[in-house]
This record gives sequence, structure tokens and C-alpha cells, in this order.
Amino acid sequence: MDRLVETLQIKIPVVQAGMAGGITTPALVAAVAESGALGTIGAGYMNAETLKSEIKEVKQLTDKPFAVNLFATDLQASSKDIAKMQHVLHSFRHELGITTSKESIEVTDYLQKKVDVILQENIPVVSTAFGVLSQDSIEKLKENDVTLIGMATNLDEAKQLVDAGYDIIVAQGCEAGGHRGTFDVNTYKDGCNLGLIVLVQELSANLSVPIIAAGGIHTKKQIDGLRAIGADGVQLGTRFLIAKEAGTNRAYRQALIDASTADTVITKAFSGRPARAISNRFIKEVENSSVATLPFPIQNEMTKDVRAASKKLGIADFQSLWAGQGVGAIDKEETAAEIIKSFGM
Amino acid sequence: MDRLVETLQIKIPVVQAGMAGGITTPALVAAVAESGALGTIGAGYMNAETLKSEIKEVKQLTDKPFAVNLFATDLQASSKDIAKMQHVLHSFRHELGITTSKESIEVTDYLQKKVDVILQENIPVVSTAFGVLSQDSIEKLKENDVTLIGMATNLDEAKQLVDAGYDIIVAQGCEAGGHRGTFDVNTYKDGCNLGLIVLVQELSANLSVPIIAAGGIHTKKQIDGLRAIGADGVQLGTRFLIAKEAGTNRAYRQALIDASTADTVITKAFSGRPARAISNRFIKEVENSSVATLPFPIQNEMTKDVRAASKKLGIADFQSLWAGQGVGAIDKEETAAEIIKSFGM
Repeated sequence: MDRLVETLQIKIPVVQAGMAGGITTPALVAAVAESGALGTIGAGYMNAETLKSEIKEVKQLTDKPFAVNLFATDLQASSKDIAKMQHVLHSFRHELGITTSKESIEVTDYLQKKVDVILQENIPVVSTAFGVLSQDSIEKLKENDVTLIGMATNLDEAKQLVDAGYDIIVAQGCEAGGHRGTFDVNTYKDGCNLGLIVLVQELSANLSVPIIAAGGIHTKKQIDGLRAIGADGVQLGTRFLIAKEAGTNRAYRQALIDASTADTVITKAFSGRPARAISNRFIKEVENSSVATLPFPIQNEMTKDVRAASKKLGIADFQSLWAGQGVGAIDKEETAAEIIKSFGM
Repeated sequence: MDRLVETLQIKIPVVQAGMAGGITTPALVAAVAESGALGTIGAGYMNAETLKSEIKEVKQLTDKPFAVNLFATDLQASSKDIAKMQHVLHSFRHELGITTSKESIEVTDYLQKKVDVILQENIPVVSTAFGVLSQDSIEKLKENDVTLIGMATNLDEAKQLVDAGYDIIVAQGCEAGGHRGTFDVNTYKDGCNLGLIVLVQELSANLSVPIIAAGGIHTKKQIDGLRAIGADGVQLGTRFLIAKEAGTNRAYRQALIDASTADTVITKAFSGRPARAISNRFIKEVENSSVATLPFPIQNEMTKDVRAASKKLGIADFQSLWAGQGVGAIDKEETAAEIIKSFGM
């Protein structure tokens, strides 16, 4: 069990997931790091300047190591063929008092610039999702002694990451909240998502790198059980969403507390990529509209104004309430330190 | 951990799943019982006479206790509105050399008669899936000191079973092969199936009865891990499908050995009820036909001749190759005793 802790220079084999979208505040990342676990800045959608300033803020709060999470996929995209989906979204906009909307969508990718910031700031750990970083980025990061953590949903993806030079694999079980890490979304099938007891068994039996189990984890017993199955450590997202230091808004927090284990679904409605969230009106109405979601990240960019207004107005119904199946066990807000202490490590 | 073993009067907290359809031969059930685990006759589709003769055969092979598995749902059904699905199935029949087919479907239910056989034969354990037995049946079985095991896919179903008088709950994770135990198939959603680490945690935290974890289990490490999370024991299906004593046909066995972890899907194509199987031509072509599957058990009855002919001809492509996500770990045939010995209990 010790190799993970040694490699990451942390005390407790627990990773706070790099949740994107304003959740991983500097206060959260620093509190997790101060508690001996690995805090992570969720930089998937950030531009390089924001990432730089977030890193500086975390550094002011802690001198412990922390990680930056990136999307290992090109976000650069544009589309003019969005009229049908805009029509579906307009009904939400009407309810939320949004009067403007775009006629075309443009998304900029900042991945290379963010890698440069990570190198400049001497970040010791980079974790990624959705694929494998370019060989060029991997080489640059390795030259700077950065430890690379890659997320995989099956053995084939894990092997691609290891072959490319990644040091540690996050095994994302079907239980996990937020986006599925699936590399090729075109071949994605819900029923093929592996449960964590199968994925951890398979990755630990077939790979020599450390394995971090992720998905649906809430209790010390689950952590002990997953380590018995073969995991070196665990990654938790949903449990840290409710942390007092997290950037999670009030309506989202209440939804996390209210939700039962069986209330999450996997949907492409928010971003065009399959992701697990607490079911709400947005998901139901987009899915019932029979209008096909646009590819990631176009759909994500299109739904941004609706989600932002819903957040601002304190309404849960039109937000992406990412949550794993462990959400049923959440019944109160706690500090990051209290959460980590509950694991009794 | 001991309460499960004590209640079931077995030595090892392992249950061989009550797989229906000729898999659980008397030789398999008896070999499992002789090894100290709980063997189970999969009687879901049997009539009362067949069940009686199977029980007598097992009794000739062992004096250890064993269980009978029933479907706690009324199979009685008939339908004349089957023309569209028959058209889809005809293409398979053509390939398999089947020249006749039905114009209407009639399914008989033998549940009450099977309960009577169980009472006459003093079977000590009955396990059920798909729902809760009638209060009348439960009372009769309890008067005869029968231990009742019910399968649940979430906490709500588990509570219904406990409230009705069931003694033990099988927690069926999303990883499991064969039919989902979901009570209300009309509300079924793939993405809502709970991973085993979440389901076991939730059931063990909320219920006082023993919990048996089921789905994707293959190794001793997984068993140790699930017991750490809160399971009293485990139930395995797929691992026993490949047992030398099982009724599994040659083509099916080869498919189990060849399949990878990521090769299973959840489909209604065979029976009208969602179930996990190794993907094959039958599943793909029925699902691509855009003809809706008929409700369980009508669809099951309709596809029977196709599956039987496929079996007989040694073809895997049109069989229901039920398998859990643990199938990737299967690489050889073993005796039931060898399988149970590998758990090191």
C-alpha cells in the first residue's frame, strides 16, 4: 500500500477528484493537502491564466504537494448546426429569464498553455481524463519529474496510458459521478461500464503500476474493501462536493443531501459526453425532446448559460448535478479535514 | 460473518446462484453442497414435476442442505400480437434451419405447485428473484422452517423483502450476469443499476439481516473486499457456469473463456427483461431491428426455439450467453470443488 503514498509524497492514500467547473476552490485543494491527502485543481475547462492564479492561491495556503487535473482531449470545436438543440434549450431560458442566445458555438482549447503553466509552477502531479496526453506533453512533464495519473474505465484504456508513460491509473467504476472517462465516446454503451470490484480486480491483476479506485466511495469500510481487492488508494469526488470548502452552490448542496442512491442517471444532456448526475428536469426534458445531443464540448458550451443562470437563481432543476452512486450516503456538510479524518487512516 | 453460515447450515459463506435453463444440474448442486457451500437448483422456468425429480436426484448425490430458486413473479401470460418480432426472429430461424413458428404465445405459471413440492421435499432454503413471494406462500414456507433469500437491486426492494418476512438479502450489483432482479421493469433504467460496493454498503448499513453480495465476483480478494464492506457472504453465477458439472453447452463454455470483461451488455432481446450477456449477433440484430421487444415472459417464450437450435448446433451467436462482468477472469473449466477451494476459506 505504501508505493502510492511514496510516489505522490502524501500521507494518506486518498485523492480528491479534479472536478471541473469551479468546485475545486483553492481552499478545498489546500485543506485536502493539509490533511495529508492529494488535493487537485480541476482545470479541465480553465484557461491558462485562471489556472496560474489558482495555483498561486493554493500555494499561499499550503506548502504540501497538490495536483492539477486536465482533459486529455482537444476541446477546440465549432458548430453552426445547433438550431434544433437551441430550440429545446429556449424553454429553459424562458423560465430562467435569459433573453439572448448564440447562433453558433466556438470552443477554444488551452491544453498546451496549461501544460506550460504546470511546468513553470513546478506542479508535482498531473491527472488526466478522456484519453492520453500527447507524447510531446508527456515528455515535457516527465522531464520535469511530474507524476502522471491517468483515468481508465477498462483494461484497454489503462494499457494505453501505461504504454504512453503514465505512472498511476485511476480505475473509474460505473458508480462514479460526473463524466465517464471513456476514451472513445462513439463506442460508449451504458451497460458496458464496469463495476469497481471488477475493474480494480482486473487492473491490479494485469498492470504493475499503482491503482486508485474511484466511484461511489464514501466510507472507511469501502476503502478497506477496495484495498483488499487490489487498489493502492482511492479517489473521491462526490464526498468532497459537499465539503464546506468546495465551490458547490447552495441548491446543488441541498440536492446532494436530498438524493438517494438510486437517483443518479447517466446522461449526455449537459455536455454531449456521458456523465452521471442526479436526475432533474433538464435531463428528463432534453432526453424526452428526441433531439440528439451535440458532440462534446459543443453541447457543454451551449448549455452553459442555462446552467449558470440556474446556479445564480438557486435552482437545482437546470444545473448539472454531477454525483456518484455514493450520494445516498451524504447527509451533511463537513470540512475536508473531517471527511478525511472519517477514513481513520 | 458467522450468522450466514449458521442460518444456512453450510460451512463456507458462498452461494451458487440459481441459474435457470438447465445450468444447475443435480451434479453441480450436489458438488457445491459437498464442498460446504450452498448449491441451488435454478427452478425459475421448471414445472413442478421436473423440480421434484431434480430434487430427488440431488438428494441421491448429497445429504447436505441445498436451495431452490424461484421467480417471485407470475409467469402466466399470452399474446397474439407477436408478428413484428416473429419477423425479426425468422431471419435467425432461416439460418438455423427452423421451419415452423408460432402465431401466438402462451406461458403457464407453475409457482404454486413448485412451492408445494418444496414443502413436500422439506427443502431448507428458497431463494427468489424479480419480486416478493405472495404472503400465502411466505407463510407456508415459514411454517415449514424454510429460510427465505430474496434478491434486491436497491434498498427499496430489499426493504420490501425484509418487511414481507425474508431472512437474507442477495445484493445484486450492476456487475451481475443474467437477469436484473429489478422488481418493476417498467421503471428500469440501465444507468441506475448500482455497483456492488455501493449496494452492499447501503444494505448493510440500513438492514439487520445478512447480506449476500452478487455480481462480477471471481477471486478470493474480491470476496475478502466485499466482506470488509459489509457482506456476510457472496453469490456467484458466472464462475459456476464454467464448472465441469454445470449444464452449460460447449459453445457457451467457449464464449465464456474467450470473452473479455468489457464484452457484456445489458439487453432485453432474449426475454423482454433486462439481463447481462456476452454480446453476440442475436443481441445486435434484435436491437438494431428497431422492433420493440415484447414483455417478459412473452419475448422469452418466443426466442426459445432459436436459442435451443443454436445450442444444439453448437453456435454461440443466437444463444443467451448470460455472463457477469467477471467473465474476463475466466480462462479454464474447473470442478465446483476446485472453484470453491480457490476461495481459501
